[in-house]
Parts: sequence; C-alpha cells; structure tokens
Amino acid sequence: MENENYQQLTRTFLRLSRFSHLSAIAGWDMFAMMPPGGSAARGEALAELGVLQHQILTDKKVAQWLTAAQQEDLNDDEQANLREMARAHHQAALLPESLVEAKSLAGSRCEHAWRTQRPGNDWQGFSTNLKEVVRLSREEARIRAEAKGVSRYDALLDIFEPDMTSARLDVLFADLKSWLPDLLAQAVEKQSRQTLIAPQGPFPTEKQRESGLEVMRMLGFNFDHGRLDVSAHPFCGGVPDDVRITTRYNENELLSALFGVIHETGHARYEQNLPRQWPGQPIALARSTAIHESQSLFFEMQLGRSKAFLQHLLPIVIENFGIQPAFELDNFTAWNQRVKPGFIRVDADEVSYPAHVILRYDIERALIDGDIEVDDIPALWDEKMQAWLGLSTKGNYRDGCMQDIHWTDGGFGYFPSYTLGAMYAAQLFNAARSALPGLDESITRGDLNPLFGWLQQNIWQHGSRLSTTQLIQQATGEDLNSRYFRQHLTARYL
Amino acid sequence: MENENYQQLTRTFLRLSRFSHLSAIAGWDMFAMMPPGGSAARGEALAELGVLQHQILTDKKVAQWLTAAQQEDLNDDEQANLREMARAHHQAALLPESLVEAKSLAGSRCEHAWRTQRPGNDWQGFSTNLKEVVRLSREEARIRAEAKGVSRYDALLDIFEPDMTSARLDVLFADLKSWLPDLLAQAVEKQSRQTLIAPQGPFPTEKQRESGLEVMRMLGFNFDHGRLDVSAHPFCGGVPDDVRITTRYNENELLSALFGVIHETGHARYEQNLPRQWPGQPIALARSTAIHESQSLFFEMQLGRSKAFLQHLLPIVIENFGIQPAFELDNFTAWNQRVKPGFIRVDADEVSYPAHVILRYDIERALIDGDIEVDDIPALWDEKMQAWLGLSTKGNYRDGCMQDIHWTDGGFGYFPSYTLGAMYAAQLFNAARSALPGLDESITRGDLNPLFGWLQQNIWQHGSRLSTTQLIQQATGEDLNSRYFRQHLTARYL
Ligand SMILES: [Zn+2]
Ligand SMILES: [Zn+2]
Repeated sequence: MENENYQQLTRTFLRLSRFSHLSAIAGWDMFAMMPPGGSAARGEALAELGVLQHQILTDKKVAQWLTAAQQEDLNDDEQANLREMARAHHQAALLPESLVEAKSLAGSRCEHAWRTQRPGNDWQGFSTNLKEVVRLSREEARIRAEAKGVSRYDALLDIFEPDMTSARLDVLFADLKSWLPDLLAQAVEKQSRQTLIAPQGPFPTEKQRESGLEVMRMLGFNFDHGRLDVSAHPFCGGVPDDVRITTRYNENELLSALFGVIHETGHARYEQNLPRQWPGQPIALARSTAIHESQSLFFEMQLGRSKAFLQHLLPIVIENFGIQPAFELDNFTAWNQRVKPGFIRVDADEVSYPAHVILRYDIERALIDGDIEVDDIPALWDEKMQAWLGLSTKGNYRDGCMQDIHWTDGGFGYFPSYTLGAMYAAQLFNAARSALPGLDESITRGDLNPLFGWLQQNIWQHGSRLSTTQLIQQATGEDLNSRYFRQHLTARYL
Repeated sequence: MENENYQQLTRTFLRLSRFSHLSAIAGWDMFAMMPPGGSAARGEALAELGVLQHQILTDKKVAQWLTAAQQEDLNDDEQANLREMARAHHQAALLPESLVEAKSLAGSRCEHAWRTQRPGNDWQGFSTNLKEVVRLSREEARIRAEAKGVSRYDALLDIFEPDMTSARLDVLFADLKSWLPDLLAQAVEKQSRQTLIAPQGPFPTEKQRESGLEVMRMLGFNFDHGRLDVSAHPFCGGVPDDVRITTRYNENELLSALFGVIHETGHARYEQNLPRQWPGQPIALARSTAIHESQSLFFEMQLGRSKAFLQHLLPIVIENFGIQPAFELDNFTAWNQRVKPGFIRVDADEVSYPAHVILRYDIERALIDGDIEVDDIPALWDEKMQAWLGLSTKGNYRDGCMQDIHWTDGGFGYFPSYTLGAMYAAQLFNAARSALPGLDESITRGDLNPLFGWLQQNIWQHGSRLSTTQLIQQATGEDLNSRYFRQHLTARYL
C-alpha cells in the first residue's frame, strides 16, 4: 500500500480523536451538568480513558511508523500532519508514566485543597502542596529540556506555544514594559475626568441568557454545531462539530456574562471553522493556546468593545432590559472601556491585563529555572504589583499569588498565552483593516461578514497546517510584535 | 496472589465499567443535549468505544481467566459475580464481528429511514429494510441457539431476561389471555357510565418541570446523584452514581409528562440504590430489563395511580396550576385510572397494555423462528388488534406495526419485559403489603419510607447477586405468576 506507515498513523490519530471527543463531552458535562455526587466516578472514568489515550499515542508502533513515514512520498499537508503527529507523540512519550501519575496526583491534591485554602487566605497550607507540584514540574522540565536541548522553562512553554521561547518573550515583554505603564497611567488619568453612569440591575438570568444567544447569532455562532450553558468557570469545550461554550450569570451585573459570551464565541468560531478535510488529524486542530486566545480577544476586545460594535449590541441590551441612562451610546461605550487597575487578573481591563501576565511570567520562569523558591513568591508578587499597578498584596494571598488555578496542577508556561493573544489580536485586526479598506464602515453598518471572512481565510481554515510563525506572517506580513497592540490601546484609551 | 484469575477479571470489568460510564453520559447527551450537527461525530466516537469494549470483553485472556477462576476459592458473592462476568463474555464472544457490524449497520439504516417512513405510512419501504434486519437477527439467533441449546427465540429472549423462556412466557401469557379480555371489557363498560372532567390547559412547561421535580423529591430521587432533563423519547440513563432521567412536555397535556417522571423515577431509584460494595462489577448492576420495568411500573402504576398517592400528588398539581374542577380528588383519581383501548402501546393504560405486548410477542417469536415472514406482519397485526381490542389497523401501518422503534435495530425479545414488569410489580406490591401491615395507611399519610425500605431490602440492594427467579422467590415467597396482577386490576378497575 502507498504510504503505508503514514496511513497507519492517520488511522491511529482518527481513533485517538474519537476518544478525545468522548473525553471532551464528558469533561464539558462535568463542569456544566454533572451533579456533585457524580464527581468521583467521572474522575475515574476520565482517568481510565486518559491512560488508554496515552498508551495508544506512545506505543512503540507509533514511533516506528513516524520514523518510516519520513521516507514516504507525502504532500505538503501530509508532511504538516506528520510533524504534528510526531510532536504529539514525543511530548507524551518523553515522560516516564510514574512522573505523569505523580504529577497528576499532586496537582489534584493541590487544586482540591486550594478551593478552600484560597478563601481562607491559607498560604502556609497552599505552599506545602505547591512545593510538591513545583518539584515535579521542575523534574518534567528537566527531562523535556534535555530532550529538546532548550532551557527548562522553554521546554514547558513549548507545550502550549510551539515556536515560542523565553528569549522572544523577553524581547516582546521588555517592549511592553517600556511603554505600557505610562500608557496605563495616562488612561487612568484621562478617565478620572469622566463621569459615568453605571447600569442598574437587577438583570434577570433568563434575559441575560437571551441577550447572550442573540449576540452569538450576531457573531455567527452555528447553533447546529454548538450550545451555550452555564458553569462556575466559563470555558469553550466540546469538539469542532459540537462546540460547548459556557458563561455564568450574576443578576446584579450585566456585562461580565455578556462579554464572557462574546469572548467564548470567538473561541467557538475558531473551533467551528477549523478545516474539515482531515477528520481526526492533528493538522485539523487549533494552532496553539495563544492563537486561540487571539480569536477570543479579537471578538471580545478588538471588535466587542469598539463603539462601532457596541452600537449594535445596545439594541439587544435595551430590548431585554429596557431603556436606562447608562444605555446611552457614549456612556455605554465609555463604561465598556473603563480602565481600572485591580488585584484580580480575570477582572482586568485590556490595558492593565498584561501587567498581571508579565509578573506571573517573571515569577514562574524563575521558579522553574530554580532561581527562586515557592517561599519567595509572595514578596515578589507584592513587589511587582506595587511596581506595575501601585497595589500591595502583602498578607493578602487570596487576591495575590493564590488567585489563579493554573499553577495548582502544574500548568507553568501557560500565562504568556493571554498577552500573546492580545498582541496577535491587535496585529490581526490591523492586517484585516489594511486588507479590507471598507472594514470599519461595514462594522458600523452592522455587517460583520467581511471581518469573519478575513479570519476564516487567514486563521480558521488553516488549523495547524502552518507553524504559528508562518500563520502570522502570512496573515499580517510580519512577525509578532507589540506595535499594533500599542496603537490599538493608544487609539482607544488616550 | 490469591484468586489471581478472579482478581484479573475484576480489574478488567472495573475498566470496562469506566468506559461504559463515558458511553452512558455521551449517550444521554446525544438525546438530551446534543445539537443536530454533532450527530455524525458522536456516532463514530461511540462506535469506536464500542469496538474497544467488545475487544476487551471478548479477549482470549478473559476466557482463560474465567475458566481458571472456576477453580479458585471464591465466596458466594464472588461466584455470583463470576457467573455474571461469564455471561457477559459469552454473550459478546459468540457472534462473529462481521455479524455484529452488519447488524449494527442494517439496524441504523432501518431506524434512520423509519423516522420518515412511519409518518409517511410507508410499509413498502420500511419492510425492505426490516427484512435485512430480520435476516441478520435470525442468523444471530441461530448462532446463540446452537451455543446454548435452546430455541432461536429463547436465545434472543435470554439477552434481556436471563432465566426466561418462551415456554414460561406461553404459560404466563395464556393465563393472562384467559381473563384479561373479559376484565378489560368490564372495566370499559363500567367507566362508560362515569362522567369525567378533563384537566384544562395550558400547562406551562416551567410549571410542569417544577411539579416533576417536586414529585421526584417526594419519591426520594437523590439529586446529588442525578438530574431531570428533556428528550424526545423519555428514558433513564447515566450511571448509578449519576442517574439521568428525561421527560417531554406538551403544554396542552399535564399528566403524561408527570407520570413519565414518576415512571423514570422508579427506574432511577433502582439505579441509585444498587449495591456500592462491588464497584464496576457486573454483580452490582440491575438484574434485568423486566425487573427494571417492574420498578418503574411499581412507581407509576401500583403506587402512582393509587388514590392514596394521588391525594398527595394533587397539592403539587394545584400549587403549580391552580384549582380547577378536574382537580377534585375523585375526578382526578378516576381520570388517572381511565381505561381506553387504543392503537398506540406507549399511550396505553395498564389494563389494555398487555394486549399490545402479547401480540408483539406472538409475532416476533414466529418471525424469528421462521414460521412467518415480514410480509405477513400487517395482516397478523390487524387480526390480533381486532381480536384483543376491537380495532382495525388495515392499511394503517403508522399506528400499527410501524409504531415502535424496537424491531428497527433488531431488538427482538425485548417486548415481553413490559408485561413481565407489570406482573412483577403487582406481585411485589402484594408482598410488601403482607410484610408491612400498616403499608396502606402509611401511604395514605404520605409516608413512603416503609415502602421504599422494603424495595431497598428486597430488590435494589441485591443488584445481580441473585438470579431473577431467586430474587423474586426471596422477595415474594413464590415464582412469578399473574395472580396479583389480576387482583390488582380487579380491585382498581372493577
Ligand atoms: Zn479565552
Ligand atoms: Zn420503563
């Protein structure tokens, strides 16, 4: 048979994708539907499937097929798929199973205890568990770093962002550091002179849900291949054929659920428009976490909080909640573009958000590379929050270094994706504007099709066919840089 | 290691149960949550998992362990578990994979086409597909019959009802046939003299759901381990730790959704109260489809439509829908106990229901044994409906032999479970009454705990530890017979 080894691989990855389908749906159910008493059995079922997937992916035959397929006559797409297959296999095969299991157990323990330790501000208890997670993550990083010939932190970064290195991040973030604090201060100063009217609740959950569904329709979400539900931590899950997004409702607050829906719809449209011609193959998956985040932030920040879009969002809000002074267009726009530095990353506006990410990056990198220890984190956190945002977290672990879930299960290397995503989004929006001269007018008219067509053409349809670098060069004509993010923030906030 | 082969088996079945968990949740999602566009990918994912489960279950090592474990020192429970393991293995291993696959494909094709053929009354088209399903089911029956040394139909019956044979069914059903037509005629005649007031809608869906949830609470459903949702065909799914029941709402009709919920709650309480001391083992599963149906009919018919219970259901109805003449207790009771022979099995009252089952049993048995062909079905159906219920289905395939989904995918041998369940339920209720002298008074007072305690003690906690025959003998002191079903119908309807 022609390309026999490559064909064996595609069959294996198709099979794996079907198991991933079940894992994705059972995972969505766990957060959106499952009653509490179902938790233990679900955890065991998912772990059993995870073991199976790991065994299939790291099987010796897969390694042999990967080697032999290199010699086969593959076209460009097949070569790209082979590259992604090899990457998935090697990522999984590097670690001894004992380490995978120990890390999973330590992560579960740390995450589980964190749920009560965070509200209790119990750094002492939390740090004990975190030390074990860090110890195992350092071990993982050491093994990955040796195999790849890169630094330890870079080896973890690579899990989430292929092609990205801390050397590149340092350049990008140093650039941000050179202008962002000043821009933030100016934006805050400028806004201190505005008087804003806050939306008045309550905002009934059912009406919020209706508004969310209407916005999703406006944004082109395909309801034949997806749903909107509720979960404590909003996310975008499911599979490309059946994308499940979630939000959470607070009857006293209107915009956080609504912009949460807009954000997740960005993730969802990327998933729903991934290429269909390679079913179950890695080449058909989303490129990376930062590119994924670029799509959600494109929807939420670039498009969603622009005045051109807000004027089309307002009728939906008014239809569901009636007229009130806060819903006058200029006030509504200004309200959605408030800049207000605070302790909590997930509540941050887009101007102060990078501060939250860069301080975490600085700390987690030093931690993995062994330059600092877990006990050093609170002081460093306080120092960096003071420097960036003028806020002290001394003794306030809950709203400081204990606020995020990422480190509890060893997700070191993930945080940079958020700010990379914001920069990609700005660069992509700028490129779309250059490519489509009437873009702003069409958005103002309420016609979003040109914009979505451009994303489809330049991002969504490519899946993982190109490397991140190629993808972004092809879409924007240049490498990732922070120029367009700066331009965007300057134009919107100064 | 002690009992090494048995231990290998328990690990294998625990692993299988975890895959079944994922299959059950993804199956529930498919009917209760999934958008239409997710269907193809879900079907492939579930089929892939099904192939894996079949491979694990029929692996040669399992056969070897089963043989070797026979010699090991096992206690009674372990022996019962081994018996159930062997049964599951042999059931699956008997059939060649090619037949399993052909039957699955023919069944999907027939079921899929039936969805439009039934509304179109297209017997011609339907019978073409059904012939292929029957051909493959006969082949399956032949293989199973040879291996077990029983008749072909009995070999299929055994899949759903271990211990049950058509010889026993013939005796049981012959007995029913000797008195039921007369009882039915008398009940209809008696009720023709009553004047009943029908409940007046509309009954808003949200209120119906609220009523359903209240009834579930009253019936002891554990919401920490289960949910109520909506699906086109109501069912009880999920896993014992997380039971998912569904219903469907019609705003013009109150009682069908509500009694659907009561029915499924009976299934659910059985599942939620299965034994916990053998996690993932076959001994911990529900005994059979007829015993399962006995629990739902116990809840829906024996308890649910009794006046003693209805007087406690009424306040929930009135609280949600207000007072109206139909909600006077005697009228409400009589309305819930109407006997009205009709074409459709799923809409039938408990007096005419056995007619629907027995006519299907007679036809499917003759079909599998080769005494009749698919083309003979409509005439036989019409003849039997005329004889039993005085209704003609000539030319009306839609409301005749095309109304059910069971035969479309080759589920021959299932139908008897419904009437066996009704007989078991009556026999069990009678036994509970004998064991608990104050039972009727406690139900009248609204205290259902003695009744549920008795079911827990006599049915739920046993899982598949006992054979169906042992279970029912131990619970009621005698073998299954129709005496108590007759007593129940006589007391309620004459
Ligand atoms: Zn996101
Ligand atoms: Zn049932």
